[in-house]
Amino acid sequence: MRDHLIIIKVGGKIVEEEVPLRSLLKDFSRIAGGKILVHGGGKSATTLAEKLGIETKIVDGRRITDAETLKVATMVYAGLVNKNVVAGLQAFGNNAIGLTGADLDIIRAAKRPVGAIDYGFVGDINWVNAQALSELLVNGAVPVIAPITHDGKGSLLNTNADTIASELATSLCSRYEVRLIFCFEKAGVLMNEADEKSVVPEIDPVMFEELKAKGIISGGMIPKLENGFNALRRGVSAVVITNAQGISGGLRGTRLVLHI
Amino acid sequence: MRDHLIIIKVGGKIVEEEVPLRSLLKDFSRIAGGKILVHGGGKSATTLAEKLGIETKIVDGRRITDAETLKVATMVYAGLVNKNVVAGLQAFGNNAIGLTGADLDIIRAAKRPVGAIDYGFVGDINWVNAQALSELLVNGAVPVIAPITHDGKGSLLNTNADTIASELATSLCSRYEVRLIFCFEKAGVLMNEADEKSVVPEIDPVMFEELKAKGIISGGMIPKLENGFNALRRGVSAVVITNAQGISGGLRGTRLVLHI
Repeated sequence: MRDHLIIIKVGGKIVEEEVPLRSLLKDFSRIAGGKILVHGGGKSATTLAEKLGIETKIVDGRRITDAETLKVATMVYAGLVNKNVVAGLQAFGNNAIGLTGADLDIIRAAKRPVGAIDYGFVGDINWVNAQALSELLVNGAVPVIAPITHDGKGSLLNTNADTIASELATSLCSRYEVRLIFCFEKAGVLMNEADEKSVVPEIDPVMFEELKAKGIISGGMIPKLENGFNALRRGVSAVVITNAQGISGGLRGTRLVLHI
Repeated sequence: MRDHLIIIKVGGKIVEEEVPLRSLLKDFSRIAGGKILVHGGGKSATTLAEKLGIETKIVDGRRITDAETLKVATMVYAGLVNKNVVAGLQAFGNNAIGLTGADLDIIRAAKRPVGAIDYGFVGDINWVNAQALSELLVNGAVPVIAPITHDGKGSLLNTNADTIASELATSLCSRYEVRLIFCFEKAGVLMNEADEKSVVPEIDPVMFEELKAKGIISGGMIPKLENGFNALRRGVSAVVITNAQGISGGLRGTRLVLHI
């Protein structure tokens, strides 16, 4: 029987403001067994870029990353956010280790080819070093992953944190029974954006297409769900979209399934 | 017989400008056996602080670290500099892993008590997790250490990189035969600051006191040498102060000894 592994991606205010971060880390630290935290940090990156007079361009929810923006992303994701999360988890007794894709060569990516849009220093994942991650997990370490990868030729690349979480999940599911949790500010997929109680408990690809066509699912939720369904198809045991409260409370939120 | 371990501390322009950094990493990557790189990043931190309108205060070569300065230090040291070094070493075939003291709890520090000067979020090292570092080294990983530690209670702290290097060296010298190299912009301790050829080949504590009294040794060189002599007294096999060229060329520079 494979050991359990839970991969939680957290983004938004939850990881960037002191009080909700502390609460999240307390809940996360209490999860028993193998676990990995993948975080974002986009809001802090946008704030720092603004202060430095660097314009932030986002197309279809993806940040256009020129050389200066890559520096900002590296500073905020791999430095500020990552190390505060690591220090916070250490204080709660979890032996956290902060990593980008470059550290131990855990995530190798390729710079996205220039098409209709030039995304700049954005990396699409080529492979995940599941062996290196497994060794850390076996030793009781808790990997905390910043959304920065590398190309193996010396360049860092900016990579979407949701994508990193689902690639890690699929790469590790031959070794572990993996649950993948996307944790953000809303309680799950909502039928009515203004009503946190309108959570869709389960969603399958057919329903996803319907809700997308109706405009109920839009923006950053679309790639999140696409990533989630792909992870399920590639062997991940469970995919859930929830908020910070969902982590402590037995994974409420929206559960992705291939067939309802 | 103990295995060899070389610990190299690099600071100044060498780690902060692309061309000298690449050259350094190429030389460093060719060193066989166990090795650890400890880096600074103060110039970039000062530049970023200036752009953000945060005043940099340095007393006796030590940065006064208020909350905003700690954020800048964390972003620059643990993010920008550390991850560029790691990606660069990966490109040269070294399996680098970037770490602060918080990661795997490798360096625990205490916030410096407020005395005549309030240094702010500056950490004095309590202990080094030699076991965790040894495990990484045994697995062939190359630790790259940023000068940020933590207090175990969730706070990051700014810690002098020279001090980190010598504390790592002394903590690891019961397990390894450790050589400690301080690599900076000058060729070693110079009798005449304007003449790079006036390198003192060997220095002992008596000569150090004489040169300090004459003003030939001053500023940041004083704690560097004090750290170095302490490391020798505590069992480190060799301590050398040199420049980037000294790494490739068989450790030229100034060698510290307890008695000439």
